[in-house]
Amino acid sequence: MGVSRSRVGPGRRHAGLVTNAPAPPSELRHDPQQRGFASDNASGIHPEVLAAIIAANGGHQPSYGADVYTERLQELFGRHFGPTARAYPVFNGTAANVVALQAMTDRWGAVICTATAHVHMDECGAPEKMGGLKLLVVPTVDGKITPALVEDQARGFEDEHRARPQVVSITQTTELGTAYTVEEITAICSHAHGLGMRVHVDGARIANAAATLGVPLRAMTTDAGIDVVSFGGTKNGLMLGEVVVVLDPTIGAGLGLAYVRKMSMQLASKMRFISAQLDALLSGDLWLRNAVHSNAMAQRLAAGVRHLPGLEIARSVQANAVFAILPPEVTARLLERFAFHVWDDRTGEVRWMTAFDTTEDDVDAFAAAIREELAR
Amino acid sequence: MGVSRSRVGPGRRHAGLVTNAPAPPSELRHDPQQRGFASDNASGIHPEVLAAIIAANGGHQPSYGADVYTERLQELFGRHFGPTARAYPVFNGTAANVVALQAMTDRWGAVICTATAHVHMDECGAPEKMGGLKLLVVPTVDGKITPALVEDQARGFEDEHRARPQVVSITQTTELGTAYTVEEITAICSHAHGLGMRVHVDGARIANAAATLGVPLRAMTTDAGIDVVSFGGTKNGLMLGEVVVVLDPTIGAGLGLAYVRKMSMQLASKMRFISAQLDALLSGDLWLRNAVHSNAMAQRLAAGVRHLPGLEIARSVQANAVFAILPPEVTARLLERFAFHVWDDRTGEVRWMTAFDTTEDDVDAFAAAIREELAR
Amino acid sequence: MGVSRSRVGPGRRHAGLVTNAPAPPSELRHDPQQRGFASDNASGIHPEVLAAIIAANGGHQPSYGADVYTERLQELFGRHFGPTARAYPVFNGTAANVVALQAMTDRWGAVICTATAHVHMDECGAPEKMGGLKLLVVPTVDGKITPALVEDQARGFEDEHRARPQVVSITQTTELGTAYTVEEITAICSHAHGLGMRVHVDGARIANAAATLGVPLRAMTTDAGIDVVSFGGTKNGLMLGEVVVVLDPTIGAGLGLAYVRKMSMQLASKMRFISAQLDALLSGDLWLRNAVHSNAMAQRLAAGVRHLPGLEIARSVQANAVFAILPPEVTARLLERFAFHVWDDRTGEVRWMTAFDTTEDDVDAFAAAIREELAR
Amino acid sequence: MGVSRSRVGPGRRHAGLVTNAPAPPSELRHDPQQRGFASDNASGIHPEVLAAIIAANGGHQPSYGADVYTERLQELFGRHFGPTARAYPVFNGTAANVVALQAMTDRWGAVICTATAHVHMDECGAPEKMGGLKLLVVPTVDGKITPALVEDQARGFEDEHRARPQVVSITQTTELGTAYTVEEITAICSHAHGLGMRVHVDGARIANAAATLGVPLRAMTTDAGIDVVSFGGTKNGLMLGEVVVVLDPTIGAGLGLAYVRKMSMQLASKMRFISAQLDALLSGDLWLRNAVHSNAMAQRLAAGVRHLPGLEIARSVQANAVFAILPPEVTARLLERFAFHVWDDRTGEVRWMTAFDTTEDDVDAFAAAIREELAR
Repeated sequence: MGVSRSRVGPGRRHAGLVTNAPAPPSELRHDPQQRGFASDNASGIHPEVLAAIIAANGGHQPSYGADVYTERLQELFGRHFGPTARAYPVFNGTAANVVALQAMTDRWGAVICTATAHVHMDECGAPEKMGGLKLLVVPTVDGKITPALVEDQARGFEDEHRARPQVVSITQTTELGTAYTVEEITAICSHAHGLGMRVHVDGARIANAAATLGVPLRAMTTDAGIDVVSFGGTKNGLMLGEVVVVLDPTIGAGLGLAYVRKMSMQLASKMRFISAQLDALLSGDLWLRNAVHSNAMAQRLAAGVRHLPGLEIARSVQANAVFAILPPEVTARLLERFAFHVWDDRTGEVRWMTAFDTTEDDVDAFAAAIREELAR
Repeated sequence: MGVSRSRVGPGRRHAGLVTNAPAPPSELRHDPQQRGFASDNASGIHPEVLAAIIAANGGHQPSYGADVYTERLQELFGRHFGPTARAYPVFNGTAANVVALQAMTDRWGAVICTATAHVHMDECGAPEKMGGLKLLVVPTVDGKITPALVEDQARGFEDEHRARPQVVSITQTTELGTAYTVEEITAICSHAHGLGMRVHVDGARIANAAATLGVPLRAMTTDAGIDVVSFGGTKNGLMLGEVVVVLDPTIGAGLGLAYVRKMSMQLASKMRFISAQLDALLSGDLWLRNAVHSNAMAQRLAAGVRHLPGLEIARSVQANAVFAILPPEVTARLLERFAFHVWDDRTGEVRWMTAFDTTEDDVDAFAAAIREELAR
Repeated sequence: MGVSRSRVGPGRRHAGLVTNAPAPPSELRHDPQQRGFASDNASGIHPEVLAAIIAANGGHQPSYGADVYTERLQELFGRHFGPTARAYPVFNGTAANVVALQAMTDRWGAVICTATAHVHMDECGAPEKMGGLKLLVVPTVDGKITPALVEDQARGFEDEHRARPQVVSITQTTELGTAYTVEEITAICSHAHGLGMRVHVDGARIANAAATLGVPLRAMTTDAGIDVVSFGGTKNGLMLGEVVVVLDPTIGAGLGLAYVRKMSMQLASKMRFISAQLDALLSGDLWLRNAVHSNAMAQRLAAGVRHLPGLEIARSVQANAVFAILPPEVTARLLERFAFHVWDDRTGEVRWMTAFDTTEDDVDAFAAAIREELAR
Repeated sequence: MGVSRSRVGPGRRHAGLVTNAPAPPSELRHDPQQRGFASDNASGIHPEVLAAIIAANGGHQPSYGADVYTERLQELFGRHFGPTARAYPVFNGTAANVVALQAMTDRWGAVICTATAHVHMDECGAPEKMGGLKLLVVPTVDGKITPALVEDQARGFEDEHRARPQVVSITQTTELGTAYTVEEITAICSHAHGLGMRVHVDGARIANAAATLGVPLRAMTTDAGIDVVSFGGTKNGLMLGEVVVVLDPTIGAGLGLAYVRKMSMQLASKMRFISAQLDALLSGDLWLRNAVHSNAMAQRLAAGVRHLPGLEIARSVQANAVFAILPPEVTARLLERFAFHVWDDRTGEVRWMTAFDTTEDDVDAFAAAIREELAR
């Protein structure tokens, strides 16, 4: 071994190693003008974010977060969430939640959340299977937990037979497109803290909440009593990237949270490229522009179809999701023309989501299609 | 709630929500010409890979892997690893390993690996803590396991007191910069299969192995008997992206591996951007060009300093790592000029890694600095 | 080291090692005639079971289940549950459930159970924390799940975002003192099997169910389609001992279940003493006598207080538990005289449990006390 | 449902429920005079311990450790281990270790132990699979770790890539039949504490160590700096029962350890019967008498065969284990006459263990058999 290897390209010396591949197709592989209403994560990368990736390229930077972009991130999150904020970028939202919740609990801890919560419904049991977390699930009408609902599960604190409730996890905006008011969050935090519990926000769409409430991020988190935020970037214009933002300095203190992130397989080696994206999102007002826009598109859509006979807007439209109830055959025909999700096939409820890149024309075309299909 | 929101930018209506941030610095934040020898993951994104990200942008694509780029990936990996290969992109190497090993084991399984293995040394216990895996560690001289070393731990198959050895995990190229030959891998696989065990490759640097051995990927994996590969992209020019490549169709069959990936918090929503990068790497010969080049740079570095008095090349240079033993004070001075890692402060061993973007000038400047500091 | 040691007692040579202890109290430390209504696990060891422990003592027997008593157990459980039954003794009921459910699921599996299920309410998250199990909880009126309730959670079988429902776990008799009929169990099993799921019985009080239904154990388990039973001994007269009874031979096949039991810290070294107790319980009719008796005591208690003004029997009395609603001040006074549990302090519901050793006099004295306190 | 059930025995009404069983064999099922040298856990229950079980029977006692016997346990362990000791009975030794180690570590913690440690070799990965613990294994000559060996793994304390070493776990007496001296333990504790680590003792045979060293339990644990002990009862005359003895009051504080025990499926409902056994063992000198005796039997055995040609005593005999090397054919013939374990079939090493009930005649007969078989 220890072969000496000259600087020849594979075209010569390594010809045999490259599979007999057809040349990679040079044509574009998807239609960059086609957008649907399936999810805000069906969108791509916002141009300003892409520019930041490009700008961060070149040269070497220390890996695993010791780069200058990640360093700057701390100051940036401090600006948005207050000086105690510590920011830990991770890859995706499931991970942000599971890392956060592990750091907020003892081994014997339980987490109170809603029956529609992403941590309960959409993470394949990662909280349980990776984090060893017990979830205590409460039903809600609108996706929002209340102090009274917390109370329903917040018991047995001195009873070793029951995993100890240590965290209330809320989603802002919720999985049902609703937004907690600052007062509601404050009430939950106050109640939970009074019981010795902490409060976590799954903020995959927290920017949409800020946009709809018209308040800074800090007002509905740090100042309302929130302890840890899963800050969402992916659904708001990033290629990928979420951040565990720790507001209570005692949580995951020292290297605690760093350890939890690493052992949860969430430490990016070339972290500069996640941090640079977040910088693009948060150093100016891009985060808010994107959220304001996608929220507005949802309002436009709801307004465009609300009064159509045979269609019912099923939930309050407070962010970038519109839930509607349609006849199944209308839904079926619409799905042949536009992407979106059937939310509940028993009730006929569907979900339409807008994104940072949804255009007025997209909305209007979709609304027209809905009209057409309802009228057939 | 349910506010109607006009399409105004935050500059007007939402002015108060944007923190009083200084304008983001427009100047470049790091020197794109500066490269060190700390790690191949200190490098950035290869231009062809970056171009693929850009090309994949725009429009909407189904999330979670239902996009056209990920679809194409299956054919691509089939070309490199044979028709049974199934490719599951994940975020990073730790995750690729832990996802693979979970899918390869029963709940009561154990994994035999070397004492220098990344799964044992550098993953913060993720295999144990997330995967519930027991590691059975064997010492090696050169980072390479052998059938005889396997034998040392491959026992107690019918003894419930001992987690059952079900997988041998090898690293190619190894953490010590060495490469298994095809024959060595074949011997390990044959031995392991004979015992009813499976073999996994941590291939974070598998391209460097192909380059140094001069064989196709398939020759040292599928055809040698390997069952699952953690295919590395990040260290070979990607922004981020690794792939669990399942070669034995019975492993993680049906949706098994998809479930394990999701519950391991490794399912990317905008997967198209990981898949597009892999496409750029693997549809032509970029994967091999990058590896051949970084290997050649390591050879150039070794050749440039090998005969310097006071310096000893500690291990066979078979890929893109050079291990050397230097006087500590020389190391200290060098570290002020170039980034690299001290491998073992008890022996004075250091590790110098080259990357796809390391230039001949980088190497020559570094070699000159080593000479200078040794001579002082 | 390697000291030679003569056969002197510690009274001489080792005098200093024994702490200056007061002589152990020779008087009996608790009143063996006092019994309450707190739980059937407040009782002691049935004399026939104790006799079996004594008889199994003396000499050496192979540890970890290779003894003659455990060997005989297989035949014994075969008699009660059919020839496919394999019996794995464990220490307690929580463990029986968690071992069983691990063996019945893939790593990505979920378990459907009721909101009152012991696995959900009373095991401190052991299913999640030790077994990595996701629980999908359904509310019930009477502690009994139905095919319709299963249906509510039995979905998303091909959706990696949701832990795959693989098991329905029922409790027989339930935590609310009710018993599933054979027809109800058959319907659940048929429905679950039709969906590719399996059915587990938490049978901590399965003997009470057999007694109340008047059917053999096999009729409501194996013959009804049950796949695995957690067979309860402790609450029915054992000192301690539960058994994972696997009825579907494909579950935990080979050494699978043995491995799961061991890694779950449930492999007793001196297993003969657990097996001998089970032998005493099951080789004759002791299991049934005990259950018939405790059930009868519950009926006697219910009958004795049912018509008292101010008291309401809250649930159907089908086994050895009586649930009643009382004025809180009556409950408070009663608790000073007899042990029992407040089930729900919001409704005033209390739980009274009878055991194999509850006497008619115990019941009558308690009923009299209830009458007195209600009348005050 | 809600059947009314008269007080008839199964002989009448429930005749059909009792399987057509042959009457349980009344004859004794094993020879109570036969003892081997397989393990100290092949023995039964010491008569004084059995008497304590019998005495604790009858009447009701609060379950889950609220009984008078368990209450008394705290005082008892305080006497032996000092006033800070808190005692948590569990079922078996694997569990005692895994409960202790979980309570001593953060989620990201690692445990340094020897390559022969029970936690590594004989617990089917329970520390990893149930506790999420990373083990860092060091080879030893005699089963005893040293500060220098600790040092080998005690690094990377500020490196999130490596599970943080937080505990050193030693076994006393070791799996190789050796005993740490008080000085050796003190040195390990002092070294570990200096590094911010804690020290755990797997004391499955800690009584044998006290006996061989001639020191009180406290001298080699609390006073030497030990933080948590897994106190062994089963191998020293109990039917079953081990105790997690927490000496550092900050470990598992509040209800922490109680929670860990429960979630680890180790909370006995009828705990009085485990506590009563421990009372019998520890309130007088039974623990020491048993250990002194079994140690003496090992010495007698070693003395009886040490000088036989063809046999080599392989390790220092310091407790109740004798390791010897014999020709394989001699071992094979001996195994037909007496139970014992082959320790290493590559070297021909065997292990002979004595127990509290091993008699001088047992030893002499075994020694004679060894002589005979060696002479054939």
